[in-house]
Amino acid sequence: MLKVKKKKLCAVCSQIDEEVAKLLQLKAQLGGDEGKHVFVLKTAKGTRDYNPKQMAIREKVFNIIISCFKRHGAETIDTPVFELKETLTGKYGEDSKLIYDLKDQGGELLSLRYDLTVPFARYLAMNKITNIKRYHIAKVYRRDNPAMTRGRYREFYQCDFDIAGQYDAMIPDAECLKIVYEILSELDLGDFRIKVNDRRILDGMFAVCGVPDEKFRTICSTVDKLDKMAWEDVKKEMVNEKGLSEEVADRIGEYVSMQGGKDLAERLLQDPKLSQSKQACAGLTDMKQLFSYLELFQVTDKVVFDLSLARGLDYYTGVIYEAVLSQTVPAPVSTPAEQNGADEAGASVGSVAGGGRYDGLVGMFDPKGRKVPCVGVSIGIERIFSIMEQKAEISSEKVRTTETQVLVASAQKNLLEERLRLTTELWNAGIKAEVLYKKNPKLLSQLQHCEETGIPLVAILGEQELKDGVVKLRNVASREEVDVPRADLVDEIKKRTL
Amino acid sequence: MLKVKKKKLCAVCSQIDEEVAKLLQLKAQLGGDEGKHVFVLKTAKGTRDYNPKQMAIREKVFNIIISCFKRHGAETIDTPVFELKETLTGKYGEDSKLIYDLKDQGGELLSLRYDLTVPFARYLAMNKITNIKRYHIAKVYRRDNPAMTRGRYREFYQCDFDIAGQYDAMIPDAECLKIVYEILSELDLGDFRIKVNDRRILDGMFAVCGVPDEKFRTICSTVDKLDKMAWEDVKKEMVNEKGLSEEVADRIGEYVSMQGGKDLAERLLQDPKLSQSKQACAGLTDMKQLFSYLELFQVTDKVVFDLSLARGLDYYTGVIYEAVLSQTVPAPVSTPAEQNGADEAGASVGSVAGGGRYDGLVGMFDPKGRKVPCVGVSIGIERIFSIMEQKAEISSEKVRTTETQVLVASAQKNLLEERLRLTTELWNAGIKAEVLYKKNPKLLSQLQHCEETGIPLVAILGEQELKDGVVKLRNVASREEVDVPRADLVDEIKKRTL
Repeated sequence: MLKVKKKKLCAVCSQIDEEVAKLLQLKAQLGGDEGKHVFVLKTAKGTRDYNPKQMAIREKVFNIIISCFKRHGAETIDTPVFELKETLTGKYGEDSKLIYDLKDQGGELLSLRYDLTVPFARYLAMNKITNIKRYHIAKVYRRDNPAMTRGRYREFYQCDFDIAGQYDAMIPDAECLKIVYEILSELDLGDFRIKVNDRRILDGMFAVCGVPDEKFRTICSTVDKLDKMAWEDVKKEMVNEKGLSEEVADRIGEYVSMQGGKDLAERLLQDPKLSQSKQACAGLTDMKQLFSYLELFQVTDKVVFDLSLARGLDYYTGVIYEAVLSQTVPAPVSTPAEQNGADEAGASVGSVAGGGRYDGLVGMFDPKGRKVPCVGVSIGIERIFSIMEQKAEISSEKVRTTETQVLVASAQKNLLEERLRLTTELWNAGIKAEVLYKKNPKLLSQLQHCEETGIPLVAILGEQELKDGVVKLRNVASREEVDVPRADLVDEIKKRTL
Repeated sequence: MLKVKKKKLCAVCSQIDEEVAKLLQLKAQLGGDEGKHVFVLKTAKGTRDYNPKQMAIREKVFNIIISCFKRHGAETIDTPVFELKETLTGKYGEDSKLIYDLKDQGGELLSLRYDLTVPFARYLAMNKITNIKRYHIAKVYRRDNPAMTRGRYREFYQCDFDIAGQYDAMIPDAECLKIVYEILSELDLGDFRIKVNDRRILDGMFAVCGVPDEKFRTICSTVDKLDKMAWEDVKKEMVNEKGLSEEVADRIGEYVSMQGGKDLAERLLQDPKLSQSKQACAGLTDMKQLFSYLELFQVTDKVVFDLSLARGLDYYTGVIYEAVLSQTVPAPVSTPAEQNGADEAGASVGSVAGGGRYDGLVGMFDPKGRKVPCVGVSIGIERIFSIMEQKAEISSEKVRTTETQVLVASAQKNLLEERLRLTTELWNAGIKAEVLYKKNPKLLSQLQHCEETGIPLVAILGEQELKDGVVKLRNVASREEVDVPRADLVDEIKKRTL
């Protein structure tokens, strides 16, 4: 019976498909949407190229982050840039509208990845992996309103570190916070704070304050705005838009103003109201435990238990955290086009890392619903790039974009072959060497190339040097020159460019 | 008049859009195409995850390639994974049908990049850059029939090195070949050959053999098949499908069987027919010059001037080259699904690098058509990964996926805090250290973790060691143990894991 109905529906559907195809063909014949067409030379909205200078900064930042991940014993994996559309469906709540879909060109329906966490969970379920400590650095895609001067793009990097496995409570969670602490310290971005809370404490708090169950998530997202809005405005939203009573809102207001450390967790475990919630007690007990590990890890000076922290994503089940820089970054002059989309103009850089525990996500992919507990952190690298780039602009030190140790040059004409021969010797010995692609370049332009690109040494060949079996080695900065026997040149360059 | 017509057309178009929207909505209400739906846990067709072992191999290969690019003084850039669709339009000839388009979700029409060369040319034109030596390692996308066991994917890496700028002939071209030579030697993939030819020699050859101008490109793509097909079959295609006379085909046959070095270029410059073509002479003169530079670069033992080489892409204007491995790779057992798409089953791995000169591409993007001469090479890394993975499987040496130097362990219970304290000391000193996330792990399972993951050292804590201010340092392989004063532990670990 049901089958017959489906068949009929399918017939109607394919009829529709035919009609749609006919209409679209007609439209194409009419010239489609393209009226006056001019090709614009640009990258896609919300994306950017990285030039060599930006890449040099990016490499430096990645090296610091990867070193830290490796210091903590992490492996790395990679996943495709697109997933089956269904893999992403139902994982991001309201934000799903920001997912980039690929065009249906026949075959599977695909979408660009929105974060690295859902592909990670898919990977674990697909390969039946029950414990792993991995990092993953890759680009993710969101059709958001870009605010590029603030480091917000539609294509951007995430640096994720996650620990999957059934372990004793709060040990991996504490290591994630240690990692954030190490990375932000090493990147030298000024003072920072890492706010910590727990999804169970939030839920317990909402329950004892009298928020109806079905409003937990929406009230959560209102609380999440406390880092940008005053309490008065947040309260207004709770009462006027979300339909809480003033009384309930005020009760929430008392809790979310609280900040502290282990002591606060202990005090709240004694709180006559909050201690009635089993969930809250579980969260608070874990919070106490977390802080005792953080003490051993020597990071409590930057970590604060903050009841107003309420990260948006649906999949968190336990501890959540977010790192914010204290320093506000001077707002660069933005173009009108960028101001349009800039919803944070003039604000602080805000969150540069965040994460938490998500014990249910892998189970959503497993055919038998088997759970793999996970906790992880994601470093918001684009904002960090923005800050580093601004620092580099202000700094007098020049960013080198190559690692060339020596330029092979000549002062006289007709020595191209000799230059190429010497360059080959250097390359074959592992020296980073360049040679200008001209038959007879001027010595001045060869020296200028060194000045411009920061090459520290020049190996100069002339008739006399060739006859004497030496090379004139010039220090670009000091302009000192010495004759080095050709057989010693490689060692001399290595010694000088350690 | 025209304006009025356009307006009318637009009105019809938007009427069509409305009708389409209504129909699609109706279809959605009916349940769309989804009848019996089962979620399949997989990656998109033609793509794969990289597991930690594969990533370790990938990192090793990339390090060799990047070191080589840096040794030659290259900077690096990055471009977005998608471009405006128009940027890619008209650059790939017939292959354009393999481009992935993004869904029109409002805003710009976008496509995933098909290679790194076109985005590079777009970058140069957009930023008015007239000379640069850059490398770019990134994923590109082609909706091709995947043959994954042979290392052919729909998402795959390219490693590109290009030199843009107006320089003296053949010097940068020779450096590109030197780079291919260095990389393939260092990767240790067995013997290889680099075939070289020139678009102008091919065109001149076709002209003097009597191929009509308009058939140059299509005959070119037939010649390109000579590495997979016998001459008899290629000739058949030329005569039966492409409509050449037997005589013309035989004349081509004579030329394309020629291989040699500088001497062949010299001989062909004297060839009574070929020397009548201005284009061919220009190509042959450059070929001679190229070989003289290749001699200086010490790479002529692997480079062969091969008149049958005819790379497909439209944008090449001068020298072209392709590197092939001599060794054929044992064909792994492939699944029926893969056999379907495998057009090279049982064949050699074939081309692992290719490139050439493309002096016109940047001008296609410049509003004033200003040209920037370019030459470059692309390393086909996926095939190299496949070979390296197979080598790793055969080899007895275990691939490590982490770099952890030491595991902090305990033989007794209730020492979690002491383990975390010591681990913190090690992390803070830059040592790569792990600790099991259990309150009371068995010593055996701690040692097993080291064996499985290749951690060379264990730092063991016990009541006695704590009292004595020492740590028992165990060599996992030899099982030797020594007590090391806690203050000396960092230095001792560094010394042992240099």
